[in-house]
This record gives sequence, C-alpha cells and structure tokens, in this order.
Amino acid sequence: MRQMLEAAATMAGDPALAAEAARLVHDGVGPATAVDRAVEGFAAVFTAAGGDLAERATDLRSVRHRAVARLLGVPEPGLGALDGPAVVVADDLSPADTAALDLALVAAIVTERGGPTSHTAIVAGQLGLPCVVRVAGATALAAGTPVLVDAATGTVEVDPSPEAASLVARRAAAEEVVAAVTGPGTTADGHAVPLLANVGTPADARDAQGRTEGVGLFRTEVLFLDARTEPGVAEQTAAYAEVIEAYAGRKVVIRTLDAGADKPLAFANQSDEENPALGVRGYRLVRSLPGIVERQLDALGAAVRALPTERQADVWVMAPMIATPAEARAFATAARAAGIVKVGVMVEVPAAALRAEAILAEVDFVSLGTNDLAQYTMAADRLRGELADLLDPWQPAVLDLVRATAEAGVATGKPVGVCGESAGDPLMALVLAGLGITSLSMAAGRVPAARYALRAHTLDACRALAAAALAAPDAETARAAVRDGVTPEVAQVLLG
Amino acid sequence: MRQMLEAAATMAGDPALAAEAARLVHDGVGPATAVDRAVEGFAAVFTAAGGDLAERATDLRSVRHRAVARLLGVPEPGLGALDGPAVVVADDLSPADTAALDLALVAAIVTERGGPTSHTAIVAGQLGLPCVVRVAGATALAAGTPVLVDAATGTVEVDPSPEAASLVARRAAAEEVVAAVTGPGTTADGHAVPLLANVGTPADARDAQGRTEGVGLFRTEVLFLDARTEPGVAEQTAAYAEVIEAYAGRKVVIRTLDAGADKPLAFANQSDEENPALGVRGYRLVRSLPGIVERQLDALGAAVRALPTERQADVWVMAPMIATPAEARAFATAARAAGIVKVGVMVEVPAAALRAEAILAEVDFVSLGTNDLAQYTMAADRLRGELADLLDPWQPAVLDLVRATAEAGVATGKPVGVCGESAGDPLMALVLAGLGITSLSMAAGRVPAARYALRAHTLDACRALAAAALAAPDAETARAAVRDGVTPEVAQVLLG
Repeated sequence: MRQMLEAAATMAGDPALAAEAARLVHDGVGPATAVDRAVEGFAAVFTAAGGDLAERATDLRSVRHRAVARLLGVPEPGLGALDGPAVVVADDLSPADTAALDLALVAAIVTERGGPTSHTAIVAGQLGLPCVVRVAGATALAAGTPVLVDAATGTVEVDPSPEAASLVARRAAAEEVVAAVTGPGTTADGHAVPLLANVGTPADARDAQGRTEGVGLFRTEVLFLDARTEPGVAEQTAAYAEVIEAYAGRKVVIRTLDAGADKPLAFANQSDEENPALGVRGYRLVRSLPGIVERQLDALGAAVRALPTERQADVWVMAPMIATPAEARAFATAARAAGIVKVGVMVEVPAAALRAEAILAEVDFVSLGTNDLAQYTMAADRLRGELADLLDPWQPAVLDLVRATAEAGVATGKPVGVCGESAGDPLMALVLAGLGITSLSMAAGRVPAARYALRAHTLDACRALAAAALAAPDAETARAAVRDGVTPEVAQVLLG
Repeated sequence: MRQMLEAAATMAGDPALAAEAARLVHDGVGPATAVDRAVEGFAAVFTAAGGDLAERATDLRSVRHRAVARLLGVPEPGLGALDGPAVVVADDLSPADTAALDLALVAAIVTERGGPTSHTAIVAGQLGLPCVVRVAGATALAAGTPVLVDAATGTVEVDPSPEAASLVARRAAAEEVVAAVTGPGTTADGHAVPLLANVGTPADARDAQGRTEGVGLFRTEVLFLDARTEPGVAEQTAAYAEVIEAYAGRKVVIRTLDAGADKPLAFANQSDEENPALGVRGYRLVRSLPGIVERQLDALGAAVRALPTERQADVWVMAPMIATPAEARAFATAARAAGIVKVGVMVEVPAAALRAEAILAEVDFVSLGTNDLAQYTMAADRLRGELADLLDPWQPAVLDLVRATAEAGVATGKPVGVCGESAGDPLMALVLAGLGITSLSMAAGRVPAARYALRAHTLDACRALAAAALAAPDAETARAAVRDGVTPEVAQVLLG
C-alpha cells in the first residue's frame, strides 16, 4: 500500500501533467477544468495501456479529485479527518482511504459495496476492526448518527436501544476475556492446532510475529505484482530470508507466486481470458512462463541456505492452483531439486480435494484455500456480492471437500492446514479442528478469538460440532447448529 | 444458424451501407476501399452498442471480406467449393462456413484453433463427422495433400502410409458393423440405458427423431438468444409443443433457459462480469429476472396441456446451474405450480454433485452436465484450449463426482442421466452405465457407436470398466484402462 500512495504522490507532481494543465489554462480554460481535462487525458492513456498502468489510472483520478477540490476551495473528497472515536461509513474503501484513517479512532467500518473477501473486509480483519459490508443505504446516514455495528451477525442498527448499546459494552468486556487467554493453539484436552498468520510482505510478517506461532501463508505475489520487471533471484532471496529470519525456530509456509489472469504480471505477456479465475493462474503459469517458477524456487532454496541454523525457521513451500497429482509431482520435483525440504500444495480446486490422497502421496503437506475452494465448488465468483449466499464457507458441500482432504491427511499421516479466511471465524475453527485439520492460518488479528474458542472445547466436542455442520441442509443451518453447540461461556463471550 | 445467415444477407443489402460506400466513392475513394471503410464504420457502431448487435459485427465483417473480394476480382475468402470428397482444413469454422459446406463431400474436419467443446467440434459431432481440433500448422498444408484424420486418437497424419490408409478402409467397414446394430440402448444382459439426443431447435429435434429414443436435452436458449425482445408465452408454447409432438409417446427433457453472463440476453440488462462462467447464469437469472423464468415455466406447462394424450410425450423439465438443495426446491415449487409433473435439475456445479442426495430429495430426477462439471471441478475454462488436459472428462476427480451423483440416484431410487458431450464417447458410455447412470444423451450422430458398445457388454462388465477408470491416477490412464478392458470385437470395431 505504501508503494501505491507513493505512486499517487509522484503522479501529482508529474511535470508533463502540470505542463498540459498550464497549456489548457493558457488557452483560456479555467484552472479546475484544466486540471480535470489534463488528468483525464493521462488516465485514458494509462487505461488504454492496460495491465499495471491501467490500475494506476484509478490512483491518478483520485489525485485529480483532490486537486480540483483544492482549486475550487471545496472540501476534498474521500474520508474527512476523525475528531473522535467513530464508525467509518463509506461506499467502499480504497487502499488510499484506509491508509488515511487514524486507526486509533476507528471503532468499526461499514460499506455499501464490497463482499466478504473484498479489500475492505480483508484489511479490517487484519486490523482486528469490526466490519460489515454490503449495507444498503449506509451512505445516506447523516454524520453523527449513533449506529451499532455487529460484525458477528453482519448487521448495522441505527439509533440503537440502550439494551443494544449495553450489549456493545458486554462485547468490549468479552474481548478482554478473549485476550486474556494466551499460549499456543490447542483444544481443551491438549490436541495441538497451531494458529498461524496469513501475511503479504516481510513487514506484515514481522508485525504478526509476536502474536502467532508462525506463518501459515506468506503470499509472495506482492513482490511480483508491484514490480515492473521480474524481481531478480538475489532480490527475492533477500525478501524471503527476511521473513524466514523473523520466525527463527518457528514454522513459515511460503506460497509460490499466485499471479496470472486477474493478477497480471506487468513484465510478462499473458493472454486475455474470458474467465480469468478458470484460466492460467497460480502454478499453471509454469505452462507459459516456466522460468519465473524456476527462478522463484532457486531464490527460496538460496534463502534457506543463506541463514545459519540458529536463525533458521522451519520452512515449508507450497504451490497454488494445483488440480492433479501429476501437477503436484512436477512441482515437488522442481522444489526438491532447488533444495527445498518440505514441499506441499494448496488444495483450492475441487479436483485436488477429491483426489487429496493421491496428491498427498506426491508431497509432504497440503493447505486448503477455502475462499477459492468455495468459489469453484459453488461455481460462484468471489468478487460477486450478489452470489455471497452461495460462496459461504459454511456451505455443507464445501465442508464435504474439507473433510475429504482432512481424511486423506489422516490416511497418509501428513499435515492438512487451512489458510483461507474461514479459519479466522472461531466457530469455523472448531469445526475445522473437528474435521482433522492440523493447523489454522488467518489474519493475525483473528488469532485470539480462535485460540479462546479452541481452548474451551475438547477434540471430541469439536468433532461433534463438525458432524452437526456436515449434517445440516444449508450454510445457515450449519452455522446455527455450531452456534448452539459451543459451551455456554464461549457462546456468551464470542456471540454475545 | 439460418437466422444468422439471413441477417448477413440483409446487412449486405442495407441501403445506408450502400449510400455510405457511394459517398466515399464520390469523394474519390476507390470502390474496394470505400466498401471496406463503410463496413468498418458500421461494425464499429455495432461493437460499441454491445450485446447481440456486437456479435453481428462479425457477420458484417464477413460480408465485407466477400464483397471486397468480388470488387477486386480475387477469390472470396472462406471455404472454396469442394470438387470431390475432401478433408476440410481451416483455422476455425464459423457457423456461416459450416452452412456453406457441401456435407456430402466432407470426409472430416481439421482446425488449428477451437477446443473439444467448441462450435466446430459440437457441430461435427451432430453431423457425425470425424473432427480433430487444435492441430498446430494444419492450415499450412497445401490443398490436395493426402491426410489421415483419426478422431478417436485426435491425430492427423500427413501423406499416410498404405498401412494407415488401409486402416481407414477397415474403419469404414467398422462403421457399417456399428450401424447394423439397432434398437434401444441396453447392455448385453438387458439392462436398459436409453440413448437420447441433445438438440437445440425444433428442427434439430425432428431431425434426430428417427435415430434416438427421445430427447435428453432440449436447449431452450436458442429461442431467447436469437431474439431482440423476450419471446412471448404463446410463441414459446408453440416452439415447445412442436418438440413435444415430434416425440409423441417418448421422453423429452427440456432444460429451462441457460443464458446470462457469457450468453447475454439482448432484451435484458445484465451486469458485466469478471468471470461470467462463475456469475449469474442459468437458473441464477431468477435472482435478477424472475419474470423470464416464470413465463417460460408457464409456456412449458401450456405446451403440455395444449396437446391431446395421443400426441403427448413424456415431458421432463429441468433447470441449469443449480448449486444447492434450496435452489432445487425453489425451482421445483415454481415448475409444479406451472403444471409440470416431472421436475429435475442439472448437476454441473460440484456442490450439486457432492450434495446430490439432498437435491434428489427435492426433485424427480437429475441430469449431469459433464462439460461444465469438468470446468468447475478442474477450475479450467471450457473455452481455453491450453488447459484441455485438465478439462478431460476422463479426469478421475470428475468421475468421482459422477459416481457420487449416480450413487445418490440409487439411494433415492430416482433417475440420474448424463447429457454432456462425454456421453457420446462410446468408451465413456460404458463407464457411465457401470457407474449407475440411467440414460445417456448426446449428439444424435454419436448414438450408434454408444449403442454398439453397450450391447456388447454386460452391466457387470461395465461396472468393472468403471472401477478401473476410477482407480486410475490420471485421465490418460483411465481411458487406457477402459480401452484395454472392452471386448476384443468392440476394440477392433471402435478403436481399429
């Protein structure tokens, strides 16, 4: 995000842009219109160029809005400064908006748009902020209106009753109860379920370091998607070593590049795709750009070898978007040749879950990506809010595939983790433990609630909750069955 | 297709187009360039208009190529007339190209582009023509080069040896053997597996009438996708009654509109989607355009009631893109309210296969759409040739879901058909029968081979073949296991 903001600042100071605006003013155009037209001209060129540049057009236009507002002497668009603790209500939040927020004053976030896995929701999760998306009419609320945001139920109450307000107070108390439980992730009877962090950058990784038992998902694509040329092996090695060193003595699971299709690489030509989510993405890039995969594995191998034993983490490396045992075998062969010892793959394609035992025969571990797994199992785009009911990770069909994968792990004696957002739902964490999942990776801010829930239930209790969820006819019933089955104290603390 | 060709002819005679070309000639532009520019201008307007009109731009440009060729006195582009039996080799075939072919002279079709479920492959299947797609370098072949097209193995041999040529002769003899076996679809020991036709129009339905036991899939979307306004209930009723009457006394399975997303309706606004295959398509249209679904069900109910008993078929109605039991229940309720007796749903979303028993509790039957089921199970776009290895219907993971659905049919005592292209592969037909599939629907031209294969094997033999396919580690091994397991005579006749 810092890089995006720096890019916007650079654009605002671009001499060509200033020259074009000056030329228009010289031709008799008013200054605000001149800035507007000059920016739109540049933005159109960026959009036509496509790829990474096209995305920059959005930043450029956001700069324009601010510049024009200043010229006209009207308030700048976007979020105003907060003068006290407040709920932020917006149509949607851009990364720039989020960066501008004084997080110490943000009590909760409410947006009209977005979906459960949208940028806003994910960032809110990482920051541990309550967040409700897709609230119709939210932006019509007058500033200063008291609202009660219930992220657990996904509701927003306007002018809440005193009872509702006291509920909020009880929630705050509950958060203290949750935070008081510390230590590694385990069930009440001592069955270990390590709680790990999903991170995107070395900075994220360092930030989560004190709060989790390790990294369950390091998304290496950030290094690639921000770059204009492929990062060199030395540059990659340094970034990976930084993450590994931050977790010396603990576990770090690194996922190879999950780019392509909807996350295009600025430095490599890739074909346009009608359905990018069903296209050449993730490990499939090896079909068209094998060198990128090879060089990343070389960098990962070098990063491990670069560190002395005492600064070494337990490094696991996995590939995204594996569909068949043959793909798993090809990746494992390449990764081991690069000197990587623990090799695994993501299970996010239904075929990989259905054939998990054959895939585990080729690798040392698998990790379930529940967001994509739900997307393909339900044939419903993660980005489409109107299909959110189908995308629910509580859909029994999605749980069927999680169970099938976990059972394959038991049969082969190999670890099966979960690194999708659903691991961060404490009720789901109980179900996943009950299904036999061996570790849970989530936004670091969600670890305390998952830890608290797990430590309050035995493994057998988790198994009973999992069975109840699987027996349900639909997602809502599955969630309700688990909600009704947790201990009274956990229900009180986590669910109010 | 007739409508598309008529549209192209109308365009060529459009007075506005002629006037624009004349104006350009008057301005001193040469006639060929004038036609070229005039057409391009109109095509650009059509493309900008989007939707159905944008598709017409392709027709318009094909008219331009022909007109310009005539003006310049050079041969028209596209397929020349065949002066004898020949293999047609093309980059790809458009519907207009296919319509221009003298089919009596076409021995086989070879294309450089397209995929196993592309327009060319599907049309070739319907016509019973051997077809091999994605043959690199095919269009570089000089006219008159002898080639041997082996659709069974997907290979094209240039300047074939005498042995290979004699193989072709044996194949022709084999086709006669296959055609000599008639009667309903059944295993050698009398287990009935009705062989039905996939059809797109009432004309298709009448054409297939003498060759199949019924219609297993009537795609109603043709009526909608060609229309500028929603077809009225009376118009729809007449079209459905025409199909039903053509199959009096036999079975007709009608699928409700499978439009939306990549098959947009010209008369209804639908949102742009990043991944249309994962979007609001098929039955999901009920979320945004419920009236279209309701009116179609009314027309289907009226079509059944309009016919006297002696002209009545056994009409089954099913909805596409069902993911959950709740969607199946909602569709069944609406269809029964419209007076439809036999109500079912397609199983083409992995979740529906995983939860087939709960879905069958809501409806009278299901039909597996193996093309889309493979697309979602493997997370690989049907339209992407480079992922064709993943899309293979022989992928064991896809067969796992077919088996799960068939087992749900046995458990509930309800029919589970297959209406994907894979039912038309005679080896796959044996596997599907062995998995417990109760009927197979395919392009009418593929029925004889499936019938021949089924009648040569007992149900137990089919079960053994299915078990061998499921035990295979990959698609290729699964196919080979079944190839090696069929009777020697079937291997000889069908596989050469």
